[in-house]
Amino acid sequence: MGERAIYVGLDVGGTTMKAAAVDPAGKPLSAPAVMDTNPERGQAAGLETMCEAIRRAVAAAKLTMTDVAAIGVATPGLMDIRAGLILDPPNLKPWKNVPVRDHIKAAFGKPTVFQNDANAAAYGEFWVGSGKDARSMVLFTLGTGVGGGIILDDVIVEGEHSHGGELGHLRIDMPDRGRLCGCGARGCLEAYASATNVVRRAREDMASWRGPTKLKQFFTANDDEFTAKDVFALAAAGDELAMKVVDDTAYYLALGACAVIAVVDPEMIVFGGGMAVEEWFRAKIETYVRRFGLPFPTKTVKVTFATLGSDAGFIGAAGCARLAAMGKA
Amino acid sequence: MGERAIYVGLDVGGTTMKAAAVDPAGKPLSAPAVMDTNPERGQAAGLETMCEAIRRAVAAAKLTMTDVAAIGVATPGLMDIRAGLILDPPNLKPWKNVPVRDHIKAAFGKPTVFQNDANAAAYGEFWVGSGKDARSMVLFTLGTGVGGGIILDDVIVEGEHSHGGELGHLRIDMPDRGRLCGCGARGCLEAYASATNVVRRAREDMASWRGPTKLKQFFTANDDEFTAKDVFALAAAGDELAMKVVDDTAYYLALGACAVIAVVDPEMIVFGGGMAVEEWFRAKIETYVRRFGLPFPTKTVKVTFATLGSDAGFIGAAGCARLAAMGKA
Repeated sequence: MGERAIYVGLDVGGTTMKAAAVDPAGKPLSAPAVMDTNPERGQAAGLETMCEAIRRAVAAAKLTMTDVAAIGVATPGLMDIRAGLILDPPNLKPWKNVPVRDHIKAAFGKPTVFQNDANAAAYGEFWVGSGKDARSMVLFTLGTGVGGGIILDDVIVEGEHSHGGELGHLRIDMPDRGRLCGCGARGCLEAYASATNVVRRAREDMASWRGPTKLKQFFTANDDEFTAKDVFALAAAGDELAMKVVDDTAYYLALGACAVIAVVDPEMIVFGGGMAVEEWFRAKIETYVRRFGLPFPTKTVKVTFATLGSDAGFIGAAGCARLAAMGKA
Repeated sequence: MGERAIYVGLDVGGTTMKAAAVDPAGKPLSAPAVMDTNPERGQAAGLETMCEAIRRAVAAAKLTMTDVAAIGVATPGLMDIRAGLILDPPNLKPWKNVPVRDHIKAAFGKPTVFQNDANAAAYGEFWVGSGKDARSMVLFTLGTGVGGGIILDDVIVEGEHSHGGELGHLRIDMPDRGRLCGCGARGCLEAYASATNVVRRAREDMASWRGPTKLKQFFTANDDEFTAKDVFALAAAGDELAMKVVDDTAYYLALGACAVIAVVDPEMIVFGGGMAVEEWFRAKIETYVRRFGLPFPTKTVKVTFATLGSDAGFIGAAGCARLAAMGKA
């Protein structure tokens, strides 16, 4: 471990990757280095881009690699966390069986840890974000899909098959009547509460809505023009149909939270991502959690929004590197 | 730690309690000492009965207390595991705020750990039962109710409010249309798959069943005469209605298992209790798990029955004592 104990965190997404050097208190030492992932250029190019992002992060912090104690890399699934491998995630096509951890470790000669991106984001929030005073925390990430990560007493629930915290595919309705999910199953939380599905439900609800609603202007709009943001903005402005769609979203997310309470009973449940902004939406989720959760643990569970935004991933990846350097992972 | 490192495990239930001395390999050194709990006699009497059960267990193993390294006590919820307290569990009325851990510790001058009974049973199965080769395991206990316990890498998921692994109250259907659970909520797994509810569903299904079925002989029977065992026996004999009821039970349990897979992705899912006997029933559950679970982790998750029977609780309690003595809990 370097005497200054600086950790570099890299968060690789399908479109861009971000890296920053982070101090032992979880503070990034510069704005993150951002690079295009360009998965279509192949995995060798991808690995080199990861190395370059790490080098730029170190340079941006006005450090050299000798200052770096360890490196953490987070990527989207499918993956084998223990083996340090990306398998074949849909948003990193055509990459397949990419030995990320060993490559980065060999390139820099530093201890390197590998983690799922949602788990890393959850660890970031747990370490220095909304969960920094919590003993245990579950993060739901709300975006095009719904992801998740679970931290119990500084331990990330990775799962035996690197699928711990796959909260978007927690079923909230039965498989014979639930909404159809992108994964092919019915009833998954993601099929109700992802940004994409908020828009879909809004379109469906419009079809049978008799009152006035400004949502109708979007009825024939394509998905670039009509986003969950529009639904939330109209709900905030008092549009009744938009309010119903948002209220239903809060209900569905609360059902996911209640399932997580019954399984791991965390101290805190955190929602992050583009929809997790307005306090009135958080309050709605909390109301439904308290109404539908197992009474004893639900009475005091905390329901909050994430605070680190899109920095959670690289901060969390650096935090995972620090955990490993401390012998905890 | 005594040089022979013997641990005493005590499993307290609403009707009886069982204790045994257990060696470091998880083997009970005698048949368990069994005593009536008699909660109605009050908690002071209850604590004394616990001490007596421990003394009898040590005597039955032909040992003395100086041979005992540590003691583990498991009780049903509600409880505060960290504080070592029984709060006010429905099946130990009128006990309230009973300082079990501190009392036992003071009585014997031994390190004493306290655990939820379902968690202890799960740890017993994980340590020396069906999960002994697994890295992570989830136990569903099927009885009058449905309970559960989760072990991840030798760590018991206790939960922030001592409600980790409350798998009977994992919701498998929506709160506006699910079956009513004893807890007052709708859609809980227990409302479908406990022994009591297997019988209830059988009665309901009989009402609309047009074919022949031997179940009808039980239609007006009371709950002592008509049990889940009857339904399983008739299903095994080929009665079509009984087969449907059992098949539905397997489906509901599989939905619970699928939720647990999405949350913690364990290596193994174990079902224990009176209904977890017949291999054909286990195979049915497994079939539904593989059909309805998240594909990647579900492909290789193991679905098994528990092997320790009602000994799992005291063996697991002893195992928890051993974990603590080894500095792991």
